[in-house]
Amino acid sequence: MSSFALSLRAELQQASPVFESFLARFFQENAERYAYGELFEPLYLDMTEFVARRGKRIRPMLLLGAYRVFGGERSLENISLQRAALSLELLHAFILVHDDVIDQSERRRGLPTFHKLVEERLGRMDDAARVGANVAVVIGDILFALAIDTLRSIDFDPALRDAALSRSLHYITDTGAGEIYDILLGTRDIARVAEHDIERMYALKTTRYTFEAPLVLGALLAGGSEELLHELAELIEPVGLAFQIQNDIIEYQKFKGIDRLRQTDLLEGKKTLLLRIAYDRLDDLDRSFLQLCLSTRASNDASVSKIEQLIDKSGAVGELTRRMEVLFQKAETAMDHSSLTTDQRAGLREAVAMVRQQTEQTGTQ
Amino acid sequence: MSSFALSLRAELQQASPVFESFLARFFQENAERYAYGELFEPLYLDMTEFVARRGKRIRPMLLLGAYRVFGGERSLENISLQRAALSLELLHAFILVHDDVIDQSERRRGLPTFHKLVEERLGRMDDAARVGANVAVVIGDILFALAIDTLRSIDFDPALRDAALSRSLHYITDTGAGEIYDILLGTRDIARVAEHDIERMYALKTTRYTFEAPLVLGALLAGGSEELLHELAELIEPVGLAFQIQNDIIEYQKFKGIDRLRQTDLLEGKKTLLLRIAYDRLDDLDRSFLQLCLSTRASNDASVSKIEQLIDKSGAVGELTRRMEVLFQKAETAMDHSSLTTDQRAGLREAVAMVRQQTEQTGTQ
Repeated sequence: MSSFALSLRAELQQASPVFESFLARFFQENAERYAYGELFEPLYLDMTEFVARRGKRIRPMLLLGAYRVFGGERSLENISLQRAALSLELLHAFILVHDDVIDQSERRRGLPTFHKLVEERLGRMDDAARVGANVAVVIGDILFALAIDTLRSIDFDPALRDAALSRSLHYITDTGAGEIYDILLGTRDIARVAEHDIERMYALKTTRYTFEAPLVLGALLAGGSEELLHELAELIEPVGLAFQIQNDIIEYQKFKGIDRLRQTDLLEGKKTLLLRIAYDRLDDLDRSFLQLCLSTRASNDASVSKIEQLIDKSGAVGELTRRMEVLFQKAETAMDHSSLTTDQRAGLREAVAMVRQQTEQTGTQ
Repeated sequence: MSSFALSLRAELQQASPVFESFLARFFQENAERYAYGELFEPLYLDMTEFVARRGKRIRPMLLLGAYRVFGGERSLENISLQRAALSLELLHAFILVHDDVIDQSERRRGLPTFHKLVEERLGRMDDAARVGANVAVVIGDILFALAIDTLRSIDFDPALRDAALSRSLHYITDTGAGEIYDILLGTRDIARVAEHDIERMYALKTTRYTFEAPLVLGALLAGGSEELLHELAELIEPVGLAFQIQNDIIEYQKFKGIDRLRQTDLLEGKKTLLLRIAYDRLDDLDRSFLQLCLSTRASNDASVSKIEQLIDKSGAVGELTRRMEVLFQKAETAMDHSSLTTDQRAGLREAVAMVRQQTEQTGTQ
């Protein structure tokens, strides 16, 4: 590993606990802003707890890393950098809260999803599930406002800050469009969902705010040129898709694990690349079977077993694994042909390697 | 009417069609930004149609009015002022879209709510209602991002622009807290909902973004001092509550109108001031009846008639009407004792009068 990559790794390892305590302090210091009375109080604690849950902090760390790699000179402990990094984590929390309502998910980071937290506190009540979902929609909105306000308040050159705000809002819009793709593709039969639509959904829904946003914002705050930001966005796109494929594989492994009726993408009717490729690789008879099992929706054990058997038979996991490696390789090659300096390449590679290491087991969520 | 008030009225009447065509053009010009492919295309048209629906434009007009009243010198047709005004209308649209999902409302401004538009297009499909609601949550988020980006891009002194952004984000947070009050109070028995909680809910959920935000942002862009902005917020608070009371009365009149089983606050379990005051004014026996009818939820004709009869018997509408007039009077008196100049008072009175005129029939929604 290059000495630049080594020192970057060391610096990010040091920045990580700093960020955690910054985050905890941030919610303490902002409590007064949310003093809306006793009805709201437990929700602010839920918000705090939700954001503070041990996530992987991929986005904040990528932002700080990119800031350093692309020539930023402030300490990574600088309060404005920490705020910029936090704003991405808050955006992530907002997106997760809404996404979990949309998917009716029950668990997030090993604990109840936000709407479940609220629902459980309401106890036995006719409408508890609906009230939980409704409150979570609004808390998502409040987290969104907080994320933007946190980025707005960084002490950087006004033009840079403005550009960072503008880009953040664009990334959120892209993410929303991706979420809508996810919802609408979910209503279609797998035969009517094109691979490129799934790839587009992955790019919009996840790559933008998970990889492009942190890298581009970090580089932007470091003073990177328009051309550099554009190049970075292009370089990271295949990496983003590779990580999404990794997610697909991990989700499938979870599904095959102990609790097969537990909620996974597969049982939610999600149109994943895994499913589409499995469908492509099966013969007509098996395709019909797969469509039938998927359309029954109710996750009875027989249809679930059949889906699993068909996916295994298709060899889709193997193909996805190959595609993932090709994409990572493609990104490597693109980096070699980019205008990035040797140190910048080493830094970016190190950042990607760190994310790979962190996500091997559980994905990018 | 003072000559200042007369010229303000004339100027706002002229600004109104200008704003409508600005809004229509805005969505045309931004279409490329939302070119996410054919899946997204109809939703962008829905967004455009939803925002362009003939609303009362209370918020944009109040912002433009306040800008003039508090000394702004640009033409009200200035593109940055129009953008600032539009950002409030976009925020309003975002709030309505989420609010309608939360309340499962079916109609908005005489047409289907956003989630209903999506649901209807999906045709007969098991999950159509849920998919419609999910898409609407995300479209709300996208409108929120668009609102903030629209305000961000105004050509004003950076410090003013930043202050406007900061305040907008705070108003949205207040609105969210108010919405959460609305949701959570809705789960309680009317006997356990305090009047001051309902008033707080009204202030947070509606007054902030409907009255305070436009006036304060308009005055801010005109260069108003911190003290003026603070005073304005205080002056408008009773007016906001008065308009909410007006809404309660209008909603009840609609409820008593032709279609009694149509969706109204009353049948949704909303804890309105009307309901609370009716409860207060009834004797113990009638109170129990009211609680019983409210708790059955299912809007069968018998319980609905009984609720209506009890509210009428309580004389709550009369009391609310008196309270509303007292609040408007209180605002008048406060204005007389304020530091506002004669023209400013006349202008603010004219603005409030215009809103009263526009909302007499249908409320502030």
